[in-house]
Amino acid sequence: MRDISTPPGALELAAAIRTGEQTARSVIEATLESLSSKDRTIHSVTHLFSDEACRQADAIDALRKQGKTLPPLAGVPFGVKDLFDIAGHVTTAGSVVLRNNPPAKQDAAVVQRLRQAGAIPVATLNMDEFAYGFATQNAHYGTTLNPHDTSRMAGGSSGGSAAAVAAGFLPLSLGSDTNGSIRIPASLCGVWGLKPTFGRLPREGAYPFAASLDVVGHFARNVSDLASSFYIMDGCGSIPEPSGADSWETLRIARLEGWFADNLSEPMGRALESICAALGVTRGVSLPEVATARASSFLITAAEGGNLHLPRLKEQADAYDPATRDRLLAGAMLPADTYLRAQRFRRWFRDQIHAVFRNEADVLIAPAVMGEAPRLDEPTVIVAGKEVSARANLGLFTQPLSLPGVPVLTVPVLVSDGLPLGLQLVAAPGCEEKLFSVACHLERAGLAGCRLPEMKATA
Amino acid sequence: MRDISTPPGALELAAAIRTGEQTARSVIEATLESLSSKDRTIHSVTHLFSDEACRQADAIDALRKQGKTLPPLAGVPFGVKDLFDIAGHVTTAGSVVLRNNPPAKQDAAVVQRLRQAGAIPVATLNMDEFAYGFATQNAHYGTTLNPHDTSRMAGGSSGGSAAAVAAGFLPLSLGSDTNGSIRIPASLCGVWGLKPTFGRLPREGAYPFAASLDVVGHFARNVSDLASSFYIMDGCGSIPEPSGADSWETLRIARLEGWFADNLSEPMGRALESICAALGVTRGVSLPEVATARASSFLITAAEGGNLHLPRLKEQADAYDPATRDRLLAGAMLPADTYLRAQRFRRWFRDQIHAVFRNEADVLIAPAVMGEAPRLDEPTVIVAGKEVSARANLGLFTQPLSLPGVPVLTVPVLVSDGLPLGLQLVAAPGCEEKLFSVACHLERAGLAGCRLPEMKATA
Repeated sequence: MRDISTPPGALELAAAIRTGEQTARSVIEATLESLSSKDRTIHSVTHLFSDEACRQADAIDALRKQGKTLPPLAGVPFGVKDLFDIAGHVTTAGSVVLRNNPPAKQDAAVVQRLRQAGAIPVATLNMDEFAYGFATQNAHYGTTLNPHDTSRMAGGSSGGSAAAVAAGFLPLSLGSDTNGSIRIPASLCGVWGLKPTFGRLPREGAYPFAASLDVVGHFARNVSDLASSFYIMDGCGSIPEPSGADSWETLRIARLEGWFADNLSEPMGRALESICAALGVTRGVSLPEVATARASSFLITAAEGGNLHLPRLKEQADAYDPATRDRLLAGAMLPADTYLRAQRFRRWFRDQIHAVFRNEADVLIAPAVMGEAPRLDEPTVIVAGKEVSARANLGLFTQPLSLPGVPVLTVPVLVSDGLPLGLQLVAAPGCEEKLFSVACHLERAGLAGCRLPEMKATA
Repeated sequence: MRDISTPPGALELAAAIRTGEQTARSVIEATLESLSSKDRTIHSVTHLFSDEACRQADAIDALRKQGKTLPPLAGVPFGVKDLFDIAGHVTTAGSVVLRNNPPAKQDAAVVQRLRQAGAIPVATLNMDEFAYGFATQNAHYGTTLNPHDTSRMAGGSSGGSAAAVAAGFLPLSLGSDTNGSIRIPASLCGVWGLKPTFGRLPREGAYPFAASLDVVGHFARNVSDLASSFYIMDGCGSIPEPSGADSWETLRIARLEGWFADNLSEPMGRALESICAALGVTRGVSLPEVATARASSFLITAAEGGNLHLPRLKEQADAYDPATRDRLLAGAMLPADTYLRAQRFRRWFRDQIHAVFRNEADVLIAPAVMGEAPRLDEPTVIVAGKEVSARANLGLFTQPLSLPGVPVLTVPVLVSDGLPLGLQLVAAPGCEEKLFSVACHLERAGLAGCRLPEMKATA
């Protein structure tokens, strides 16, 4: 299962195009070719933008010929979860309900920023319908398989985005995270994933799910790609210099205990121990009322999602994925009192975690999921000793951390054998750079990173 | 019904104390005396702070003797709606449910600011239980009567605050407005009232009702008292210079049409016409979907109020005022979908009214209520030709304007005979000074102001 050749990252590709080692056109063509021929084994792609991508690549190559300075991500291909607007295309959000919508008039805001930096959207990627799920099992567009073991889940709802990066098809992809939809597939597929601070990246042109919690973010195969594309999406025209390599040493790092220490698989327990040991983490921190935080995150999602879809459900409930429909209808019927209690609890819980960051730690470590990706033919996980639905329970560790709006970076731990395992690094709002600093150290120390799966179609 | 002698205003009293014409102690004693002896006819007071008020007055007199500069409202008595914390006293919010709460540790934020400016809280004033009503008919603390005709409603929920100022007992009082609770009693009692921009004045220490809509504000007998106390509560330590007397002439003033032109009593129609004529208003502006705006304001209030009280209602429903209890329980059972639709509509409606202020007008004029104060023995108003409950319908014109969070000043129109009639002056968020400017002109032109009622007890 060890990788033989690592595919080039985003910054690497941009450098090769800048120096003329490769043309943007050749990079884009190779990417499109790989997506068309190899994706059949994992089913991460829902649509390719072949012609437009080649045209944008040609424009970049022409700029270079004219001696112009290329923007920082010039020629870098990326994919988007199928809920980001791409000008001229219909955004389906993983449903057939929106199929007859007019094409988007302009790109989603983060796509615009990446495109201005020279990056080229090449594909939309599969997801749970309307982002409501942790499985990327879509009644209309199929199931995305885990590239590391195609009998297993990729995770969701941004499963296509995580899988396409994990498979080495793309150096970069966009996703969204409401209850764990970036962090769960990043963990199960073994890639870096970032759910930024709530409200930091613009959401315009990303199809909404639950306005109080929705965050757009992304996946990459290495930390510098993750960080540089984040800063570009954050509105920096160029990529800021990274802080010193050893800046992680000045950070107070602690481990989340209690709720976040239970229900771990044996390999996950070991992975967490080894990372904590490598970072010299000796202190543990407990958050109060984590079960209520998880419930609140879910209830807010259900109520807001139900509210968003109820008018359409009244008209065409049959067109929805059954797994999504029933949950949206249930959410629409929640009492306002329940919703308001969850929002009130949220303010309290936010104060609690802010106090932790003020007084106790800069970065918190927690597992992202309980263990390896569940099998597709046996989609369960073990919680409190019982076998329960993976679809409903994979968010055990991600949902409570959605509530306070803090940034969370998913670390793919390098395990000697077995399937990928992801950890969450958590910081105070706006402190993404602290997460990059710790992640960068783990990557350089050879403790975390992406390995390429041995895929049958690549043999 | 004409007033013979007008009681001195807040700034007038402060000046008399500053120059030594009166002592603060004599002002406070006279106020307390008048509140104890004369309030029996209208029932505006629920508690007097006699000892503390005299002590604070003595401290001010001592400062003056030492030759110290007195703060701008030194020695001015004021009353507070019984939901503002006063250090050392239990805040009941018009209920018996909170009667066993511990005394407040500190004053509400706006009370602190007034006290720092030298003003002296002398009394708590009657209200509808938990501010849920337009009548100030309180099952526990009695009904406040309209000073201009004690067979009529004072309006609510800040009815005690409006009535005490209207009767001339106090130059200044604090209230709160969620759906119209300052504007309605100001209109029915014939005093100046301000519901500032949502979020502008601090709400700390004011017992909440509906967090999305609650605004604290106040009542006064003249515009300069209203403006100067507003700026002090807004955090200005001193009173800013008013803008030029003629600055109202530079403002685009328009009249709200459609919804706000129907259901007016004949005297209200005439009052509105005469004020518009005096201001040279020729243009009308229509807001879209006003009925939905009114419904949304009410639904948000019901859901948030219900959510706030449900835990206590489960324990001691019988201790609530029946009129309040049933509405709170109904609100607690609203579906989250209804609540979220109302909040979504609110964002849309706010955009609509912001566009009006951007493109069409600086100040809008509308009636505050349909006409005169309803009779207590026949508590109805006429809407769409039908006699309907005053308690449920007095907010016809105030509720839609609560939703967008805009500042609204209530103008007591000086009518040649008959009971008081109030108009609403509405501006864009943060533009209270435009409202003061128009109000000041109307007052100087003799078109608006407070007249003292002929009260039997004063004869």
